[in-house]
Amino acid sequence: MLLLQVLDYLGVAVFAVTGAIVASRKGMDFIAFLFFATMTGVGGGTLRDVLLGVPVFWTRSEGYLLVCVGVSVLMWFAAHVVEGWGKPLRWADAVGLSAYCVMGAAKTLSVGDMPVVAVLMGVFSATFGGILRDVIAGDPSAIVKPEIYVTAAFVGAGLFVVLSSLGLDLWPAAIAGGLAAFVLRGGAIQFGWTLPGYAPPPKRD
Amino acid sequence: MLLLQVLDYLGVAVFAVTGAIVASRKGMDFIAFLFFATMTGVGGGTLRDVLLGVPVFWTRSEGYLLVCVGVSVLMWFAAHVVEGWGKPLRWADAVGLSAYCVMGAAKTLSVGDMPVVAVLMGVFSATFGGILRDVIAGDPSAIVKPEIYVTAAFVGAGLFVVLSSLGLDLWPAAIAGGLAAFVLRGGAIQFGWTLPGYAPPPKRD
Amino acid sequence: MLLLQVLDYLGVAVFAVTGAIVASRKGMDFIAFLFFATMTGVGGGTLRDVLLGVPVFWTRSEGYLLVCVGVSVLMWFAAHVVEGWGKPLRWADAVGLSAYCVMGAAKTLSVGDMPVVAVLMGVFSATFGGILRDVIAGDPSAIVKPEIYVTAAFVGAGLFVVLSSLGLDLWPAAIAGGLAAFVLRGGAIQFGWTLPGYAPPPKRD
Repeated sequence: MLLLQVLDYLGVAVFAVTGAIVASRKGMDFIAFLFFATMTGVGGGTLRDVLLGVPVFWTRSEGYLLVCVGVSVLMWFAAHVVEGWGKPLRWADAVGLSAYCVMGAAKTLSVGDMPVVAVLMGVFSATFGGILRDVIAGDPSAIVKPEIYVTAAFVGAGLFVVLSSLGLDLWPAAIAGGLAAFVLRGGAIQFGWTLPGYAPPPKRD
Repeated sequence: MLLLQVLDYLGVAVFAVTGAIVASRKGMDFIAFLFFATMTGVGGGTLRDVLLGVPVFWTRSEGYLLVCVGVSVLMWFAAHVVEGWGKPLRWADAVGLSAYCVMGAAKTLSVGDMPVVAVLMGVFSATFGGILRDVIAGDPSAIVKPEIYVTAAFVGAGLFVVLSSLGLDLWPAAIAGGLAAFVLRGGAIQFGWTLPGYAPPPKRD
Repeated sequence: MLLLQVLDYLGVAVFAVTGAIVASRKGMDFIAFLFFATMTGVGGGTLRDVLLGVPVFWTRSEGYLLVCVGVSVLMWFAAHVVEGWGKPLRWADAVGLSAYCVMGAAKTLSVGDMPVVAVLMGVFSATFGGILRDVIAGDPSAIVKPEIYVTAAFVGAGLFVVLSSLGLDLWPAAIAGGLAAFVLRGGAIQFGWTLPGYAPPPKRD
């Protein structure tokens, strides 16, 4: 169960970083900053737990919220430094996506033997925090951009579920899944990797 | 219980079609297409089950997700054909709305004797998938357009609840409710039916 | 338990008023008006209950929905009068925020001894109805505006939790928390109170 906790904390922390970056760009005050970072940090895992019908993780252990508070305080002073690193929002989002797609699938498999559901839950929990962040901030959601995004979460969750069902241990399966997701998403950020999109016919409505 | 399953699968399938149409118009890649279709397909029923506190339907039976996968594959090849039929997004949405408003009300009544809640749950589950689809895609939600939309779901769910409480069997009550919703929404699509809207006073904020 | 019910009904009613005002400004028909008011009215408390894993409050007692119906009928005839009072949307939202931040924290403390979670739940439930209203209506959410908003909910919920943990009775703690939130938010509406926001560095993405 240790691995799941590490991935959960990692996902929460880096998604909180992405929320804080958006909050800093919008010039929010500190409490709005804190709220926005926390909502982004715990959003994906919250959806996962609500859909699985298990207790929402951060209502059972206050450590997750304290991580969000810590990230927010740090980012309140350091967001401009982080911005200097180049595309910090997208890289942190990539780490969160990679951690959460495995974590969402793993938690689902720990509740029941549902491989298809586990893959979808991995994708939902990896992308929902970012969707929530973008929709509430009024920015276009990553899902409608042409880059590889959902695909990275799908491949990561899928690889983890396949390797697990082949009998691989939790750690190597999780590392393989997370790395696959990160490489795909990282390639999209760094080299503009895309998949062919649907070629849209003329609009009718 | 068979009728409820038919309505559930119907609602999921046609809402998935609407999600796929929007995904095709946004030029998403296949996995984003799949994700978007699935999210729209199961969104309304998911909200219904979470609010009722019952297990989310697609986490208990993988058939629903497989329907979404099948719809997505079909639409990936056929979306341009479907677009040629004229207003396919709105007609599929109308079928989904009609199936789900009855289904949402029926599932609520099967959980407890709460007619007012059942009507609202019918409306929520009939409209939420489409709202989610539009908000995440960055399109204006159907609810803010002047056409009959929520009203169709309301009449369908309301008629079903009234007929059920009068002792009518599940099938005739469901067919009457679903047809009423479909006729109202179809009239709005085909003939531009509207109800009088609130005449807005000058804006103050 | 009486106090919690008063706050719940108050929060529902005034948030329903804000939903009705937005619906009237968008020129929605009566049923869409009703739906929008209800969704805004019960949204924050619904999120709170789903996250806490307790039954959603309005599925157990039809009174809440009847309040939303009553508010909608009244506002359908009186929205233009209310608009004449000056900033009615924001003042009603301020009352709802003040009632719900205490109510969200109090319900959380009644479920378990989790002060940090209780404060966040107060903030979530106080702000979520309004976020839902604004996102679905396509308006910019209050959270991205520079005014004191989340901060008022945070101070109200925080003060209530601190006073409760110091052993103060429910009523005085709730009144102190609610008043603090209302004064802060009211000051923002009336006098434009703000906190210093993050000074945004040049954008990179």
